[in-house]
Amino acid sequence: MDRTAVRPIVERARAEGRTNLTAAEAALVCRAYDLPVVQDRTASDAEAAVAAANSIGYPVALKILSADISHKSDAGGIRLGLANDAEVRKAFAEVQANALAHDAKAKLDGVLVQAMATGGREVIVGAISDPTFGKVVMFGLGGIFTEVLRDVTFALAPVTPERARAMISEIRGYQILAGARGEAPIDFDALAKVVSGVSQLVTDVPEIAELDLNPVFVSPTGAIAVDARIVVGEVAPGRMRPERDAIVKSMQRTMHPRSIAVIGASAEEGKIGYSVVRNLLDGGFAGPIYPVNPRLAEIQGLKAYPSIKDVPEVVDVAVFAIPAALVAGALEQCGEKGVASAILIPSGFAEVGEKKLQDDMIAVAQKYGIRVMGPNIYGYYYTPESICATFCTPYTERGSVALSSQSGGVGMAIVGYSRSHKMGVSAIVGLGNKSDLDEDDLLEFYADDPNTDVIAMHVEDIKDGRAFVDAAKRVSLKKPIVVLKAGRTAQGAKAAASHTGALAGTDQIYDAALREAGVVRARTLEDLLDWSRALSMLPTPRGENVLIVTGAGGSGVLLSDSCTDFGLQLMTVPPDLDAAFKELIPPFGASGNPIDITGGEPPETYRKAIRLALNDDRVHALILGYWHTIITPPMVFAQLVTEVLEEAKAAGKVKPVVASLVGDVEVEEACRYLEERGVPAYPYAAERPVAALASVYQWTRRTGRMPG
Amino acid sequence: MDRTAVRPIVERARAEGRTNLTAAEAALVCRAYDLPVVQDRTASDAEAAVAAANSIGYPVALKILSADISHKSDAGGIRLGLANDAEVRKAFAEVQANALAHDAKAKLDGVLVQAMATGGREVIVGAISDPTFGKVVMFGLGGIFTEVLRDVTFALAPVTPERARAMISEIRGYQILAGARGEAPIDFDALAKVVSGVSQLVTDVPEIAELDLNPVFVSPTGAIAVDARIVVGEVAPGRMRPERDAIVKSMQRTMHPRSIAVIGASAEEGKIGYSVVRNLLDGGFAGPIYPVNPRLAEIQGLKAYPSIKDVPEVVDVAVFAIPAALVAGALEQCGEKGVASAILIPSGFAEVGEKKLQDDMIAVAQKYGIRVMGPNIYGYYYTPESICATFCTPYTERGSVALSSQSGGVGMAIVGYSRSHKMGVSAIVGLGNKSDLDEDDLLEFYADDPNTDVIAMHVEDIKDGRAFVDAAKRVSLKKPIVVLKAGRTAQGAKAAASHTGALAGTDQIYDAALREAGVVRARTLEDLLDWSRALSMLPTPRGENVLIVTGAGGSGVLLSDSCTDFGLQLMTVPPDLDAAFKELIPPFGASGNPIDITGGEPPETYRKAIRLALNDDRVHALILGYWHTIITPPMVFAQLVTEVLEEAKAAGKVKPVVASLVGDVEVEEACRYLEERGVPAYPYAAERPVAALASVYQWTRRTGRMPG
Repeated sequence: MDRTAVRPIVERARAEGRTNLTAAEAALVCRAYDLPVVQDRTASDAEAAVAAANSIGYPVALKILSADISHKSDAGGIRLGLANDAEVRKAFAEVQANALAHDAKAKLDGVLVQAMATGGREVIVGAISDPTFGKVVMFGLGGIFTEVLRDVTFALAPVTPERARAMISEIRGYQILAGARGEAPIDFDALAKVVSGVSQLVTDVPEIAELDLNPVFVSPTGAIAVDARIVVGEVAPGRMRPERDAIVKSMQRTMHPRSIAVIGASAEEGKIGYSVVRNLLDGGFAGPIYPVNPRLAEIQGLKAYPSIKDVPEVVDVAVFAIPAALVAGALEQCGEKGVASAILIPSGFAEVGEKKLQDDMIAVAQKYGIRVMGPNIYGYYYTPESICATFCTPYTERGSVALSSQSGGVGMAIVGYSRSHKMGVSAIVGLGNKSDLDEDDLLEFYADDPNTDVIAMHVEDIKDGRAFVDAAKRVSLKKPIVVLKAGRTAQGAKAAASHTGALAGTDQIYDAALREAGVVRARTLEDLLDWSRALSMLPTPRGENVLIVTGAGGSGVLLSDSCTDFGLQLMTVPPDLDAAFKELIPPFGASGNPIDITGGEPPETYRKAIRLALNDDRVHALILGYWHTIITPPMVFAQLVTEVLEEAKAAGKVKPVVASLVGDVEVEEACRYLEERGVPAYPYAAERPVAALASVYQWTRRTGRMPG
Repeated sequence: MDRTAVRPIVERARAEGRTNLTAAEAALVCRAYDLPVVQDRTASDAEAAVAAANSIGYPVALKILSADISHKSDAGGIRLGLANDAEVRKAFAEVQANALAHDAKAKLDGVLVQAMATGGREVIVGAISDPTFGKVVMFGLGGIFTEVLRDVTFALAPVTPERARAMISEIRGYQILAGARGEAPIDFDALAKVVSGVSQLVTDVPEIAELDLNPVFVSPTGAIAVDARIVVGEVAPGRMRPERDAIVKSMQRTMHPRSIAVIGASAEEGKIGYSVVRNLLDGGFAGPIYPVNPRLAEIQGLKAYPSIKDVPEVVDVAVFAIPAALVAGALEQCGEKGVASAILIPSGFAEVGEKKLQDDMIAVAQKYGIRVMGPNIYGYYYTPESICATFCTPYTERGSVALSSQSGGVGMAIVGYSRSHKMGVSAIVGLGNKSDLDEDDLLEFYADDPNTDVIAMHVEDIKDGRAFVDAAKRVSLKKPIVVLKAGRTAQGAKAAASHTGALAGTDQIYDAALREAGVVRARTLEDLLDWSRALSMLPTPRGENVLIVTGAGGSGVLLSDSCTDFGLQLMTVPPDLDAAFKELIPPFGASGNPIDITGGEPPETYRKAIRLALNDDRVHALILGYWHTIITPPMVFAQLVTEVLEEAKAAGKVKPVVASLVGDVEVEEACRYLEERGVPAYPYAAERPVAALASVYQWTRRTGRMPG
């Protein structure tokens, strides 16, 4: 294996202006990376082809060689299963004639004579360059499984053979390789090496834009590729990122600023520059606020300055409320002043096609090392410092969830939900056009922010997928990250020359990358909000044993359904615990799991059953189903749950509890009561509490802290 | 084809105490129904086998014949691809020896000599008897597709060849049959005939408990089964159902009773018999209420009677609030009195194992033709008659949705949600143990109930699947039916002898049956409630063109995602309409679909854009995305939407509109305002409004009323 053999081949093709490597070149590239491809030889005439076939051994396949023909089979350029010299001669003439019929101008370079692969399962291994995540490797069952069932999986390249082995087991049809119908399992090590090798090849040689090994035949004794297809192209320029230390330092100044200036501050109600100053004041920011406005001496009781350069003290953050065209000029002054961050509320940049205006603005920022949030955003909140640097509403629901959104509307949904549903927040950040600051910068800061325990992100596109995955991978081990990727379905598969490219619907790659990053992926805005709240409210479960205690048998069934849907494991209740539950509940109730205490029971039955579950260390999480009755009214239930939880907490028994409350409208008040006391509770719903608990499990498993 | 040939074969097997037909018998049964099976002959010794092989033509397969061996391949009883006399002789000896080695006591009946099938795609066709739905036919891609990927589909038998053809196209791997990779499509007519024929066979011969044709080879020129496996058994007794007229008549007396008696009425607060009388009085039922209690002369101001027989006037409905053990006796008196319906609130029957008590009770009811609701229920509400015959809370949210639940808890969730979210209700019915009355009875009544427009059902199990599908199929053409099937995931595949049986996870059959019934299937309790409300609030769309008008670009993306998820079609906006939108919105807004009017716009922009969409007949449904701003506050938005809708309605422009509102907590009030005026509106959510609209589309398409 000589990996250095690859570069000259790729460079020659590029020098000749070709994007496709020839089959012979592709085979050489593969062999340089120990990727097994069937034995082959090139032949420029029929007799050379016969000689090649004899040296390889019959049966053989013949494939036309021409840089001008990219889909050989469409051009009639392939003949398979040739058994003797005569068949090879005939086939040679046919593929030449077919190729010219297909494209009269094609330059033909003879044929490739290949050994025929000897059966086994057909799979596909490929790689592409994704604009967001860079090199990505794909694996799938080949043929109709790939083309019809799209049973493929992706991972960011490179992958180790171990990770490749795990990828292989992710496809739906895995059992087909592992030995369905009593067949011997395929040689997984050999196949994993191929996947890993492809991923290393495209990583080492970034000019490889697309690569298909298709088909690869895998058998119990090995794997071999029959056809290799390689497309080369430009290497995307790398992105310059500040060092991690520099990121954290400027984020520190942004979130804990010594002072905040408002460029374009206004005394006129209804103006954005007015709202920002108002919100900073009403929000209670303790440091100095410097309105900047050349025409006024005082704004909302604060001394105003004609320019930021006139401010006598240090300024860490400048919030912009001036038209887009004036931003670059003002930013220049911020640079001279030594401002750390510019919060660009104005729109009118790249989002409306004014890309140059944005680029020019960013050039100024880079010159001075100013980090830019936005443009085209609502601003940001950081509650530990009482910062409401936005034109929306002042906000004071302090807590530990840090949220960001690429859309102002979603940002406002976060504000409203968190206020209404008691989700305490540390930060809400608008990212808008992401001209500079983006999710990975925020992650670097939140990682060590003692005020943040949970990170929730609404994302439309990730600018630098690798930086995001790199940061999220580290941070998600310490703090849960929930991501809602919007624009999931609209983007279909891209037009691409390779099978792998055609199968790379952007969302499948996003999904693979987000999994690798260890984030909890929310399906909807509702999930993002619900799950972030649950992750901030609930303690970490110490194991997989989930128990349902319900007053309504019907709710128990629905809650069980949802547990199955969301991958929660209903505990098998040990006999002694089961017997203890039986003692508490009426004879027509049901022990097992769900524990159905039945609807006619007084508060004491709920209390005893929940206490029993909380006190038993074999139970790791609790789902409560409440049924509104006159005997145990909603608020009585809510209060008793709170009491039992307090009691258990005092005894050191801390575990996640969620609740579903069904009944008349009074259950809504009971849910609010429970929410305020750390129990995510939902009226008229059985799926949402379970999904919320499942998000906690998903994260806990990811951290490796789940025993067993 | 002589279908009468089947019965003697099945009866002989049953008479001999066999559950498995022999391969030869199964082949005969198949041929009687024109189901193509490979040519075969039986042979009792090696020379007869050679003769058979010569008469069929080589190559052949040999299969052991023995009623004692059900899985021939496991017993080494099959040899394939035998090419000549010598191989047949050798194979004969081997399969005999293997069979005896497998089971020394097996009675061997020689071998079956079969023609070898000649390639094509491998599929499986099967049938089973489902305890809920009776005969069910299955189709799937065979082999690993069935075993690993479970790519199969079910339908209630019998199916016409046309329906069978549609079934075939339902599998994920359909394209494999239709011509993936440039292959010719298979002979769909021949395959559809096989599926239809199997479904007819098991319908005609109910003793056939399970049937597998596996594999069936299908090619462009035909279909042929290689192996037929038939299991016979007891025929499940048919259920006696009242005639439809009788059902409707007694349901009419139940829902429009001339009077209601309460058996076990009580004067003591906290008793069920007290609550029922109280709720009937407070609910405002206009007819006479007769408390029955042998110990009191007056209850809650009403004259009480020692027995129902002492009531001087006719009694249509008797609500029971007495212990289970006393029910049968009281029911006897109801029968003598000529009561139409007994509402059995008491528990203590089959749900706690007291099956005999329930059977005895039902025997009394049947003797007198009394319909029984329950036992083990909360009772029922029928708002057009102001009936609150329950121990829960009085309820007065009048409207057009009729709901039923098998669980009291879910019933109470319905009460609370409908009150809180302005879902007007005609009926809420507890079905509990369904000892008699069940969903199909309710469907027969609601079908012609002028007070009911939408039917919503929470179902744990359906007693008589065929009666349900039969009724729902008819009714769902007139009125939407939404069903939440609880217990979806807990029930795995049953233990069964055939492949078809093993693949018949109950939920897949439920899913097929519910689709056939034309019901809208809710995934969760949240869906059941949301969708019922939407179906009752929204007019029927006149086409598939859905338009999103949003103030928040971010919401637009999320709403688009959900449209794709729920199968709604985002309209391609015609150029003239697009130009008209462009005139209304700022230059940096986006026309197209979503129409993004941008967040900074005043109420007039929302108003004009929504008006334009409502007035254009090419737009069939509207999804609104609102973003909370100071310029257009939430209630201003809610009011302008209502005004524009009123205006459009006056002009005869009626189309479904749903809304997603993101913003601070004030959006909750705006949502309630919109809900009260016929617009399903959700705060902090983008999926729920779209899912609700999609339920309306699902039903509209089902009725065939959707143009295009």
